[in-house]
Amino acid sequence: MVRFIDGEDILTFKQHVFKTLENDPLFARQSGEDIAMEKMRELTFLRVKQLFRYDFITKDEAMANPWKTAVLSDCLGMYDWSMTSKYSLNKGMFGATIANSGSRRHHKYVENTDNMTTFGCFALTELSHGSNTRAMRTTATYDPSTQEFVINSPDYEAAKFWVGNLGKTATHAVVFAQLYTPDQVCHGLHSFIVPVRDPNTLLSLPGVMAGDIGKKLGQNGLDNGFVMFNNVRIPRENLLNKTGDVTSDGHYITPFKDSNKRFGASLGALSGGRVYITRMALTNLKLALVVAIRFSATRRQFGPKDSDEIPVLEYQLQQWRLIPYLAAAYALEHFTKSIFMNFVEFQIGQMMNSKDDIQAEMGREIHAIGCSSKPLGSWTAQKGIQECREACGGHGYLAMNRLGDLRDDNDPNCTYEGDNNLLLQQTSNYLLSWLHAKHHDGMRIESPFHSVDFLDDFQKILGSKFTPTAMEECMDSAVPLAAYNWLVCFLLEESQKRIEQQRALSKDEFETSNNSQVYYCRSLAIAYIEQNCLRRFHEQTMDQTTPASLRPVLSKLCALYGLWSLSNHMATLYQGNYMSGRKPAELVQMAILTLCSQLKDDAVALVDIFAPTDFILNSPIGNADGQLYKNLWSTVLQGSQVLDRPFWWKEFCSDKPVVGSLRPKL
Amino acid sequence: MVRFIDGEDILTFKQHVFKTLENDPLFARQSGEDIAMEKMRELTFLRVKQLFRYDFITKDEAMANPWKTAVLSDCLGMYDWSMTSKYSLNKGMFGATIANSGSRRHHKYVENTDNMTTFGCFALTELSHGSNTRAMRTTATYDPSTQEFVINSPDYEAAKFWVGNLGKTATHAVVFAQLYTPDQVCHGLHSFIVPVRDPNTLLSLPGVMAGDIGKKLGQNGLDNGFVMFNNVRIPRENLLNKTGDVTSDGHYITPFKDSNKRFGASLGALSGGRVYITRMALTNLKLALVVAIRFSATRRQFGPKDSDEIPVLEYQLQQWRLIPYLAAAYALEHFTKSIFMNFVEFQIGQMMNSKDDIQAEMGREIHAIGCSSKPLGSWTAQKGIQECREACGGHGYLAMNRLGDLRDDNDPNCTYEGDNNLLLQQTSNYLLSWLHAKHHDGMRIESPFHSVDFLDDFQKILGSKFTPTAMEECMDSAVPLAAYNWLVCFLLEESQKRIEQQRALSKDEFETSNNSQVYYCRSLAIAYIEQNCLRRFHEQTMDQTTPASLRPVLSKLCALYGLWSLSNHMATLYQGNYMSGRKPAELVQMAILTLCSQLKDDAVALVDIFAPTDFILNSPIGNADGQLYKNLWSTVLQGSQVLDRPFWWKEFCSDKPVVGSLRPKL
Repeated sequence: MVRFIDGEDILTFKQHVFKTLENDPLFARQSGEDIAMEKMRELTFLRVKQLFRYDFITKDEAMANPWKTAVLSDCLGMYDWSMTSKYSLNKGMFGATIANSGSRRHHKYVENTDNMTTFGCFALTELSHGSNTRAMRTTATYDPSTQEFVINSPDYEAAKFWVGNLGKTATHAVVFAQLYTPDQVCHGLHSFIVPVRDPNTLLSLPGVMAGDIGKKLGQNGLDNGFVMFNNVRIPRENLLNKTGDVTSDGHYITPFKDSNKRFGASLGALSGGRVYITRMALTNLKLALVVAIRFSATRRQFGPKDSDEIPVLEYQLQQWRLIPYLAAAYALEHFTKSIFMNFVEFQIGQMMNSKDDIQAEMGREIHAIGCSSKPLGSWTAQKGIQECREACGGHGYLAMNRLGDLRDDNDPNCTYEGDNNLLLQQTSNYLLSWLHAKHHDGMRIESPFHSVDFLDDFQKILGSKFTPTAMEECMDSAVPLAAYNWLVCFLLEESQKRIEQQRALSKDEFETSNNSQVYYCRSLAIAYIEQNCLRRFHEQTMDQTTPASLRPVLSKLCALYGLWSLSNHMATLYQGNYMSGRKPAELVQMAILTLCSQLKDDAVALVDIFAPTDFILNSPIGNADGQLYKNLWSTVLQGSQVLDRPFWWKEFCSDKPVVGSLRPKL
Repeated sequence: MVRFIDGEDILTFKQHVFKTLENDPLFARQSGEDIAMEKMRELTFLRVKQLFRYDFITKDEAMANPWKTAVLSDCLGMYDWSMTSKYSLNKGMFGATIANSGSRRHHKYVENTDNMTTFGCFALTELSHGSNTRAMRTTATYDPSTQEFVINSPDYEAAKFWVGNLGKTATHAVVFAQLYTPDQVCHGLHSFIVPVRDPNTLLSLPGVMAGDIGKKLGQNGLDNGFVMFNNVRIPRENLLNKTGDVTSDGHYITPFKDSNKRFGASLGALSGGRVYITRMALTNLKLALVVAIRFSATRRQFGPKDSDEIPVLEYQLQQWRLIPYLAAAYALEHFTKSIFMNFVEFQIGQMMNSKDDIQAEMGREIHAIGCSSKPLGSWTAQKGIQECREACGGHGYLAMNRLGDLRDDNDPNCTYEGDNNLLLQQTSNYLLSWLHAKHHDGMRIESPFHSVDFLDDFQKILGSKFTPTAMEECMDSAVPLAAYNWLVCFLLEESQKRIEQQRALSKDEFETSNNSQVYYCRSLAIAYIEQNCLRRFHEQTMDQTTPASLRPVLSKLCALYGLWSLSNHMATLYQGNYMSGRKPAELVQMAILTLCSQLKDDAVALVDIFAPTDFILNSPIGNADGQLYKNLWSTVLQGSQVLDRPFWWKEFCSDKPVVGSLRPKL
């Protein structure tokens, strides 16, 4: 299975990364240790610096095998997301934005960050604006007399905020600001390279007020920061000029003609982050499952008689809490890899400067996928990690077992690069536009990555019904897949109707859209991406290149994932009469329980496949040897001064309180 | 509204507690500050010591008005649960256990903890056993030659673990151990007072290995600890001897005859904790709602035109995310108070030493209520706080805004005093026993607190259907209540059938029960407690003593809570044919959205009613003045060394990494 999922080369690479970190004392850590935030930021920086030295993947290797960069991020993220983000915000995000939005003249900035002469960050969000990027208030006003842009924050509400790396180490920022030409015309949001700190002293430059926004719920190794600009001047050339430039005398020029294609392409370019965040979330879910399933296989509690206690994983309830998430992890494993490859295909087109219709269509589709895959991944992980935490009882609440860190580090995946609920709106808009194109222009529904192709059978699918009459029939992933096909079509039609109905009430477009999200467009986008994830997994289980020996277990995982996800939509299936009577829900439920029970003996082997080394996992109750209590107990005893009396013991022993002495005399 | 919910006296008391803490520099804090765990434990101890001096409620006052003790805990918990737990584990849990399980001879221990001469803790859970208390392995063997018990931990897996207060300050523990008489007969689990640390030095006593279990996901001001006993000798009198004693020559004696009544009573006694945990969870949910709703009313993003952005609470989606939780908070407000009063009634019977049938019945019922109210409260809070966190976007992820602490501090409510999923089993057993009694003995279903009375109409209710045909009809809480009545009856019948079916497959009782939890008994227990919570709220809205001016808004909250909770069970309602066709689900959904929209303008006023002072709330984005950005920005700037370069700046500026220098030559 490991060979099937990863292949020999990736497997060796993963082990190399894991062992390298384990052998380097700089990466040593104590499970559950209590480290001050300031210290964590230092440690993270030092580790990032070491990653420059390891340079696990050169640029050439990354070009030759883009998937390997995702695997590297997985490996580093399994160790610590703060470190991974700090590394990639500089190397990837800052560098990539300059490469994508700038031109030859900006190349030196990329080189400088590549070798850490400088350190980059990406400054878009402001204190009072995140989602609504158009409302950003930082300005860049061109001054032809000196050929400079003047970067200014009108007030603290326009301070750039949440910027990763800016808290401590960033020397340069890509700053998004409203571009004003001398004629006082605003040309909208553009990006500029702005030096913020002196690389030789790390002191803020004149006019720049930069600092650390403080402690977060997680990822505290990463220094998120803020910056306010007080009329900071930068050379004209620092404008990233791919989509628009200003001439030396102050005229705005743009190379683009077909704004539609440009729009599709730029939507696509934003998707890389979201596609990879889906994978980050999956990685967190995997780690939590390794911990919870190994724990559940070794923790014994109760039993038929007092004397023989059984592993908690033998309980149907515990299986039902955990094994569907294991199935989801396998579904998402294939899904995230597959959409990453879609993104790579799109990206290659971009690099070839392809400007054809298919490239723009790819951009729109990968945007629709990324905007819903991120919610699917991050929410599944969020709920799954919480379930793992609870399924490990009290020991899951002990910091050393890492479930808390996993939850906290995963949490921002729901928020950054777009709040999940807002992003889903982009996906439903995409789907509705296909329906519109079919109805009005008679277009065939067919997309480059085929995620919407089934919708062309819209009417036929809507006429279908749930047909299985025995539980065994339901244990085939074709059953939930057929139900999902119906569900997406149903929700698409209902959403369309809802929108028309709102319009008929003479609501404006803004209100029409807002009032069509809950129960309609939002559900539609979720059903679409779940269908997509399920379909890709289903196809993998049917694929001839999938080893026959693995197909039975993959098929079970696929059926379980499908049925379990579907069970959240059961009310809609009944409401739309796809199901009726008592039987269908019962069959689905019994199939879920049966699949959980059939998979439980494989559950440990199935998590072992994606488990990193114990050093990376860093959770005593989740070690591979299953010596739950031995590992937990020794980690407790290794804690700092664990058996000492507290340094403040005299506070207890002397100055005893006089009960009620501070009680006011009433 | 405030006067209706709290009354003048409680209101004054709350303000007094809030102001006292605010005026005492020992309770000063900085939002989002990063405090080392060791320091937090010290600070918490010092604050607890100060609480002895304030002695907000004397024992006499507590006896006269038990509700006031819950209000005090609410107030202190709103400030910090670690402190509240540390205070009440000593004063309440340790003291109460001795009072309930001991006799006159143990009174001195209670007195000593009352004035902090000593400090108590409660040691039940072991490293390898939590839920299965019967499998505890610590032993207490009576030695008649010295008239002592010998307390021993056979190995580290039997170490007492998770014991609150034991990490640093406990000097005495109530230890649960298997009692052995000299004839080597085991008489089961009993509790003993065992000195663990010298009150004059805080050093562990000989034979005692006690320490701190380390960092937790939250509540890090509380020092949870472990202890192993190496044949520690304690006087015979230290056995808490209410349910059984050992004579000086080593014979076991017990005063109880009717074990059934004793069992009912002892079940009830355990319920106080769970009933109050429900309230703790509600308190966390309230705080999160204050933050998220005030934030949503002031945060503006997008709008019909670019220029006029609207508060995010104006969006239907944001309303739907938050306002149902607001309704849940109002439902739980009344519910937690009402079940607390049920518990007090039971407790008074205990103190009067009432041994009649009703007392035992009360015990069974309050046990069934507590075992399901804790899951209802803690899960509602867990999900609600997470929703609030996400609804505040990035700012919700900033530690200073406290949503992370609320989530982390609430999380153990799902686990301690019994894992939620396990506890639900107790509740369904109770319900099934009523059904059994009716079927087999023709008994009328009627309980002291009336939570099951409606089940007597079982057959009639099962014949009912969802009848509303217009959305307006659904906006009456009688509609979801009727649906819940049906739902509980349906699930009760289905669970009963499932159990019989499992038995027919010749499964033993253990397996029969395990295989009837998912989709059956577990759902039954959840539906029962939701019904109960809804019914009590519904009755309050109809009650003549509820001011007429408040009834409209309370009725809306009640209907919204009922419909929204019910919407999780919609599939079952269709499955059992209580609903059919497209209309019912649609009516329920539209009623939910309409109620959210009707309540949104009152939302801020409704959270203001239960909001503590800004000092207690401690969340800059949630301050009462609505100056979101001003408060957030100034808190960021007040952070420690926020504008300084990091102390490790030279690490950045010198010793630049040579890229790839550590890359192995392949």
